Amino acid sequence: MRGSAAGVGAATGRGAVRALASVTAATVRTSALIMGLMVEQLPLDVIARLRAIDPAISPEQARASWELLTPFHERAGYTAPRIDRDLSYGAHPRHRLDVHGSDSPAPGLVPVFVFVHGGGFVGGDKYTPGTPRYDLVGAWAVRHGLVGVTMTHRLAPEFTWPAGAQDVAAAVAWLRANIADYGGDPDRIIVAGNSAGAVHVSAFIAGQANTGQHSATLDGVRGAVMLSGIYAARELQPGEPGAAYYGANPAEETATLPGLLESSVPLLFSVAERDGPAFHEAAAGLVTAWLVRHGTVPDLVWVDGHNHMSTIGSLIVDEAALGVPLARFIERNTAVIG
Amino acid sequence: MRGSAAGVGAATGRGAVRALASVTAATVRTSALIMGLMVEQLPLDVIARLRAIDPAISPEQARASWELLTPFHERAGYTAPRIDRDLSYGAHPRHRLDVHGSDSPAPGLVPVFVFVHGGGFVGGDKYTPGTPRYDLVGAWAVRHGLVGVTMTHRLAPEFTWPAGAQDVAAAVAWLRANIADYGGDPDRIIVAGNSAGAVHVSAFIAGQANTGQHSATLDGVRGAVMLSGIYAARELQPGEPGAAYYGANPAEETATLPGLLESSVPLLFSVAERDGPAFHEAAAGLVTAWLVRHGTVPDLVWVDGHNHMSTIGSLIVDEAALGVPLARFIERNTAVIG
Repeated sequence: MRGSAAGVGAATGRGAVRALASVTAATVRTSALIMGLMVEQLPLDVIARLRAIDPAISPEQARASWELLTPFHERAGYTAPRIDRDLSYGAHPRHRLDVHGSDSPAPGLVPVFVFVHGGGFVGGDKYTPGTPRYDLVGAWAVRHGLVGVTMTHRLAPEFTWPAGAQDVAAAVAWLRANIADYGGDPDRIIVAGNSAGAVHVSAFIAGQANTGQHSATLDGVRGAVMLSGIYAARELQPGEPGAAYYGANPAEETATLPGLLESSVPLLFSVAERDGPAFHEAAAGLVTAWLVRHGTVPDLVWVDGHNHMSTIGSLIVDEAALGVPLARFIERNTAVIG
Repeated sequence: MRGSAAGVGAATGRGAVRALASVTAATVRTSALIMGLMVEQLPLDVIARLRAIDPAISPEQARASWELLTPFHERAGYTAPRIDRDLSYGAHPRHRLDVHGSDSPAPGLVPVFVFVHGGGFVGGDKYTPGTPRYDLVGAWAVRHGLVGVTMTHRLAPEFTWPAGAQDVAAAVAWLRANIADYGGDPDRIIVAGNSAGAVHVSAFIAGQANTGQHSATLDGVRGAVMLSGIYAARELQPGEPGAAYYGANPAEETATLPGLLESSVPLLFSVAERDGPAFHEAAAGLVTAWLVRHGTVPDLVWVDGHNHMSTIGSLIVDEAALGVPLARFIERNTAVIG
């Protein structure tokens, strides 16, 4: 029987969508609608090209990915209004962090989103001038009402395990003491990392920064985010990423999975659709171990269309892929419910 | 060093957000911003209450969940502008489907989103008057520029395996023949189900509707979505949900996982954060099997805050939880990239 029922929400929803379209047309922001949803997304042909990039992790993968992403970041803007560059959180030259903030800060202290870059344990940086890397993460944080922090850490072969975890701990300690001066709440810190950075974050959460006299507190850490990381014990061949970092330390001692399983810190994981095989294995192993330990599947995001190198670049310009669940995780764990 | 760099996108992004806020204030839509993102989300205190509901699957869980969700559905509107009710796709009284469409249809044919309800294999319906269930799914589809279809299917104990798969196949066949009259594209059908409905969808994909003379074609099926389903072989105790449906059929014969692993149809799975233990086990088992077969983790959404009963109710009012990745999956698999 043919019927007609006007859904108020449906009718006005379209009006709101059209109004938004006219608003965003006036901005430089990339606002491709997902079928009427107001979420930043890359155009479908760009996602298809991204998805087609060889999943092998290589400089070519990075180059091809950022070649696709960078125009969108340039159009959207990938630089927070205020950046305090190269603040020192420790003695080493790589103990540096950048604080990204708003030019019209909120009246109270806001949560802090810290990003630890990857680079195979031997490279990478928080800031490559003339590229979105990784000021885009600070800009994303500020757009979401947070204070953003991007940090560097010491590298192998000069520094070995657990230097990465120690540096994350040292940076968090510095933030606990200082970030209020920049509008950040020392009691609401979310620590995130991708690739080797995700491993360092996981090691920090697993307590591997605790050494002798030094106890790396997790006070104030309201969540940890590990993008494309590896958590289980595994044997590394000489020359393999991580081999120089882990050295002769037994895999069972450096693996972070047991510590993650016991952690009371809320954890968010991601694996990219086109991630490398080892990272898919790691995510699947995480799921299995989590089910055995907790009886549930962990909070794991499958990052549609993206690869190992592009995942962090999805922020701002392809929010449906990672940014939306990431924002929800941060909000869930830092909101003050009155 | 203190610096200031104006991010064009960041500045205008806030302008766009404020403009949207004034637009949506004029509508009846629930538009809670996730920290500046323009995605429908339940208020945080409501999500917290939802998350606190006992994960045991029961009528009380359903009652408590919909008690929380329904006011938001009522405010947003859960009824598509046009509904063609109780169209017959087969001989049995439960071979009925509702077609949900727009009052201002697109010039061409649009993809079709079909929803198969759950109910423990022995109950459930496509339409419970005076409630959002499950017209909300049709409304969600229309908001996203699709034609929506909600369907009923035959129930145990009167009808046993593989009746559910056969009914999904029959409905799809009817849609292939008729949905163009309603603006839907017979070559771009996405089939979705939750709980027992997810199992029936998985069985259809796995080829279990093929019986003797009847071959259930997957032509035109561009994707399948299984929310809180169970896929692996398992023994059921008498009285357990599914026992009446599966009867004496061997578990190995009725399990859908082997067929899913071999399917060329794009598949999206979900498990709710607060789903029942069996559904978390099923999702973890799916991940393991998928990794062994494909070397990757499958497209699995962890539905934040939700339980077994509330997951489908997240559509429209809590889009970050499921609707966003679901919309992306549909768009990815039905878009015509010119």
